Amino acid sequence: MHRVKVRVVEDALDANNTIARANRDDFDRAGVYVVNLMSAPGAGKTTLLERVLGPLEGVRAAVLEGDVQGSLDADRLASLHVPVVQLNTGNGFGGECHLDANMVRSALPSLPLEDIDLLIIENVGNLVCPAEFRVGEDTRIMVSSVAEGEDKPLKYPLMFRACELVVINKLDLLPHVDFDMDKYMHHLDSVHPDVERLQVSARTGEGVDAVREWLQRAAAREGAVA
Amino acid sequence: MHRVKVRVVEDALDANNTIARANRDDFDRAGVYVVNLMSAPGAGKTTLLERVLGPLEGVRAAVLEGDVQGSLDADRLASLHVPVVQLNTGNGFGGECHLDANMVRSALPSLPLEDIDLLIIENVGNLVCPAEFRVGEDTRIMVSSVAEGEDKPLKYPLMFRACELVVINKLDLLPHVDFDMDKYMHHLDSVHPDVERLQVSARTGEGVDAVREWLQRAAAREGAVA
Repeated sequence: MHRVKVRVVEDALDANNTIARANRDDFDRAGVYVVNLMSAPGAGKTTLLERVLGPLEGVRAAVLEGDVQGSLDADRLASLHVPVVQLNTGNGFGGECHLDANMVRSALPSLPLEDIDLLIIENVGNLVCPAEFRVGEDTRIMVSSVAEGEDKPLKYPLMFRACELVVINKLDLLPHVDFDMDKYMHHLDSVHPDVERLQVSARTGEGVDAVREWLQRAAAREGAVA
Repeated sequence: MHRVKVRVVEDALDANNTIARANRDDFDRAGVYVVNLMSAPGAGKTTLLERVLGPLEGVRAAVLEGDVQGSLDADRLASLHVPVVQLNTGNGFGGECHLDANMVRSALPSLPLEDIDLLIIENVGNLVCPAEFRVGEDTRIMVSSVAEGEDKPLKYPLMFRACELVVINKLDLLPHVDFDMDKYMHHLDSVHPDVERLQVSARTGEGVDAVREWLQRAAAREGAVA
């Protein structure tokens, strides 16, 4: 019985990868660099985007917002005057806990791919399943809040291994929480030694310039930006 | 294709409920009151248990720790001298993002059910899927951290609807985060008007007595405690 279960999962992931490649082909054809942005609930993905996307010079960005329900984050980003498309996963039973390639594919007709250079796909807040489903992205960034504790890389290793950049957020809370940055870095190195990392406070703006520059460099490297 | 997917999910939930009822029967026979404790990653479930379980007078407690990988939380709780059993969901692909009834069932032989009154099942940190899988519990408690933001009841409504008690944690961070308690309560009321709620700081100990008393009353009501 267990063997059957694993096989079903593998088939589902295989189908997902097929669709992810089709998405990636479409993104490449349109010259769009795509980021899959992941984190636990409330780690600050949207606040970071508010800080970064507004002043992103020379890069035309859009956001695909994944949520179980509602459009709170999309509404927040609307004031930035970048195209925002909402994708809700909450049909069926309690809602999917992650975006998959087919969900993203269903949103492609709503996205102005020919008119943008950078697409940020803000995934559902979850440290497990989003890491298992490619959606056609060029890179995966995760936001990790110091309020969540220094043990998270050890407890959710796949997520920390799956990304190319870890943005350590809520630096402003460091004096008020029990979080040892050295220990956290040690844990992060033990699961993903080469991963890039940036320390920020999306709330105060500290360090967010480096995230913006990282995105600009990455998009330029891919040739998405002229 | 979509219709097929929904049917598979319903079948899986139906099978889960059948096993959850079998677990519940075993818990009832042994006179054990069972709590399914849920939250986002890093909301403070384990710290709350450290505060509550040590001084839980007249109630013999045990903990079933659910994690994707590792035994960090179980190790932390070991110093409390209550039985702790670790359940890892990380076999197969990237690890299951929730506990289900069959996983809990597989742990029953390791639990001293005849010698305890209260079993706390600490679920995987996730605000989506754990709410969809009954494991045989009497009640569901969720921990919601003020660091996660006041919008969480609206974004993860099933989780907030599925529980009988919301423990609002990290009160000590209130002066340092943008969190409007009145707004949060309004959001919580809009998705689950009758739910009980307690405000605590597991870090400082503020308010944790009320959680302990809630558990003692609940266990006594069920006849688990003599």
